[in-house]
Amino acid sequence: MSDTIDRLLAHPRVAAARVHLRAGHNRMVEEIVTLTEIPAPPFAEAARAAAYLDMMRDAGLADCTLDGIGNATGLVRGAKREAAVVVAAHLDTVFPAGTDVTVRREGTRLFAPGVGDDTRGLAVNLAIMRAITAAGIVPRRDILFVGDVGEEGAGDLRGIRHLLTEGPHAGRVGAFFTVDGLDSGNLVTEAVGSLRYRVRFTGPGGHSWLDFGTVNPANALGAFAAGLAELSLPQTPPTTCSMTRMGGGTSVNTIPEEVWVDLDLRSVSAEALDRLDAEMRALAETAVAAENARNGNGQVAVHLDKIGNRPAGRTPPDASIVADTVAALGALGFTPRLGASSTDANIPMSLGIPAVGIGSGGTGGRAHTLDEWIDTAPELSLRGVEAVLLAVLAAAGIDDAA
Amino acid sequence: MSDTIDRLLAHPRVAAARVHLRAGHNRMVEEIVTLTEIPAPPFAEAARAAAYLDMMRDAGLADCTLDGIGNATGLVRGAKREAAVVVAAHLDTVFPAGTDVTVRREGTRLFAPGVGDDTRGLAVNLAIMRAITAAGIVPRRDILFVGDVGEEGAGDLRGIRHLLTEGPHAGRVGAFFTVDGLDSGNLVTEAVGSLRYRVRFTGPGGHSWLDFGTVNPANALGAFAAGLAELSLPQTPPTTCSMTRMGGGTSVNTIPEEVWVDLDLRSVSAEALDRLDAEMRALAETAVAAENARNGNGQVAVHLDKIGNRPAGRTPPDASIVADTVAALGALGFTPRLGASSTDANIPMSLGIPAVGIGSGGTGGRAHTLDEWIDTAPELSLRGVEAVLLAVLAAAGIDDAA
Repeated sequence: MSDTIDRLLAHPRVAAARVHLRAGHNRMVEEIVTLTEIPAPPFAEAARAAAYLDMMRDAGLADCTLDGIGNATGLVRGAKREAAVVVAAHLDTVFPAGTDVTVRREGTRLFAPGVGDDTRGLAVNLAIMRAITAAGIVPRRDILFVGDVGEEGAGDLRGIRHLLTEGPHAGRVGAFFTVDGLDSGNLVTEAVGSLRYRVRFTGPGGHSWLDFGTVNPANALGAFAAGLAELSLPQTPPTTCSMTRMGGGTSVNTIPEEVWVDLDLRSVSAEALDRLDAEMRALAETAVAAENARNGNGQVAVHLDKIGNRPAGRTPPDASIVADTVAALGALGFTPRLGASSTDANIPMSLGIPAVGIGSGGTGGRAHTLDEWIDTAPELSLRGVEAVLLAVLAAAGIDDAA
Repeated sequence: MSDTIDRLLAHPRVAAARVHLRAGHNRMVEEIVTLTEIPAPPFAEAARAAAYLDMMRDAGLADCTLDGIGNATGLVRGAKREAAVVVAAHLDTVFPAGTDVTVRREGTRLFAPGVGDDTRGLAVNLAIMRAITAAGIVPRRDILFVGDVGEEGAGDLRGIRHLLTEGPHAGRVGAFFTVDGLDSGNLVTEAVGSLRYRVRFTGPGGHSWLDFGTVNPANALGAFAAGLAELSLPQTPPTTCSMTRMGGGTSVNTIPEEVWVDLDLRSVSAEALDRLDAEMRALAETAVAAENARNGNGQVAVHLDKIGNRPAGRTPPDASIVADTVAALGALGFTPRLGASSTDANIPMSLGIPAVGIGSGGTGGRAHTLDEWIDTAPELSLRGVEAVLLAVLAAAGIDDAA
């Protein structure tokens, strides 16, 4: 089906790497446990990053270093030093400091917060690093392995954003894999972009009876919210606008000085997201103007505090990274479904760098809850890891003579 | 100007009572301090009520008792046991438990939370009780003195509501004074009615992206709020509708299960308030129906939790209680302005019982703040107290032969 994958499967060093993966599966499971039990709350990934960096060194990678934002990075040097292939998994979990991250085992199942999202991804990448170095594979391009910070929530993809736009590798990356999620059948080729705002309406406030006629920020919020609800959003490309939280005000008999609403705007199309952003801003201005025209006393104003910004993007289905990854998954018995998600791959996709999100293998559930679990039963687990190896090597290239 | 007030001013026992007030002014000031320093937070007036009851007994009142809701009540028995005249001041303050209520003195000024609102009113009424009993005044009607609970905020006038609609005096009250506020020039003859709601919009919630298309309670709240802002409210009678607080929602990427807004609806007209209430309810239903029609998944619902209900009402300007109180204030050198407010007098006014709110005298400021203060400089302070005495005796009546 794919020459590239067929050649890889026939390559003796690749065969040796697969043997190494199989022999090392138990060690990989132990490393999932070790890494899971090093807490990595949002904005506090340093301890796990340091441990991961040591493990990358042990795996034989070159230039192991923490970059300026806290990502752990290490190289498998390529023969030609061409634009690197990045293989990333994220260090951070959604769980706050103090969460019990002790792993409980039941047979092949592991239970702990963060065990699957994305600690298995980190361990899978380590296993692949060791398999590549142990088998003596010298890829054409550099392969830059990354344990990155800030993928979840307010982290806002800051780790990969830094890597690809500011750090020493910026401008030198030719392909990007994020190993995230479990299911090897899910192949992420579209990035759901999001813009998140706290929209605050402010005014002078006052007594609800004595000062009635003073501008009320809640009136402006009401007009804004009503307008948002009535926006006509495209189904294709899928685009959404959700009001998610609100607050503000002092007491039941006080005209509020501030009320606010949080917005989550998303689209798989950067253009559609920009259009929605502009429409939202226009509605806010109109709502403020209407309230200032209605009530003579004082002025309301609107403040848009951006609390999240994940760019939309996509990798075309005919890009070689997609075709080769589909072939790699197919060769290991999976039937991949191409889909859209919000992952570290948003950043490269938005920059035009060919990128996919690929599952780390195995099964599991309850991600983002304290009941998170994964199953590491070896057969399925290993096929997932081998698929990642093949996809990465397809992107990096190996000379037949290597 | 007023035969009634002229006759009172000429009455030897009334003259004796005024002498008693003047002689007792220092004691009244000490009682302001004593009562202020007994905390009386909302729904925790019991300690102050017990102390006040003891002071009423010492003042020579009959039937001193706590009623079923915690009001301290005591009688000056009238000659004819006709429908009683109630003279009330409220025990509760707006300040929570733990507030430092120590009184600081600077000359004739007293500084402490609650010192003026309404602790001075309580002490003024005590002084009047003592003056009446010491002078041997036997009024025609019973005078029922009340230190009442629950005037402020969420107390929702529950003390006077109970007194006039459920307690042993219900149906037996012919006139009502609340001694509240300081300025003897303010005469409250209209009751600003208010209805307060927490309006909750609920729905199934969900993920802001994956579940988009599910009904969003914030959309319904937006349409509701926009409609409220656009309501056409009468200027006469003055009627207001303020959104004052809002809240709800779980996280920035979750369609909320509940959002809410607090409303403060007010009018001096019970009919106008009822109309506004009906319009508000209709807007809520329309907003819910619109959201349920817009989004197919799930249903939003609205819940109106009433958190305050103060009836509107008025005492006609030609009622004898108004005419006599205006005359009493005029006789002491004040030029009263008739106005509208929200006080304990809302309840009797709404029930058709002639009622006024009268200032306790003196000056002050910063009520409802920790910097509250009053000035007890005797001349102005005493004239205010005497005006209350005359107004109460005019309503209760004294036989010339008494």
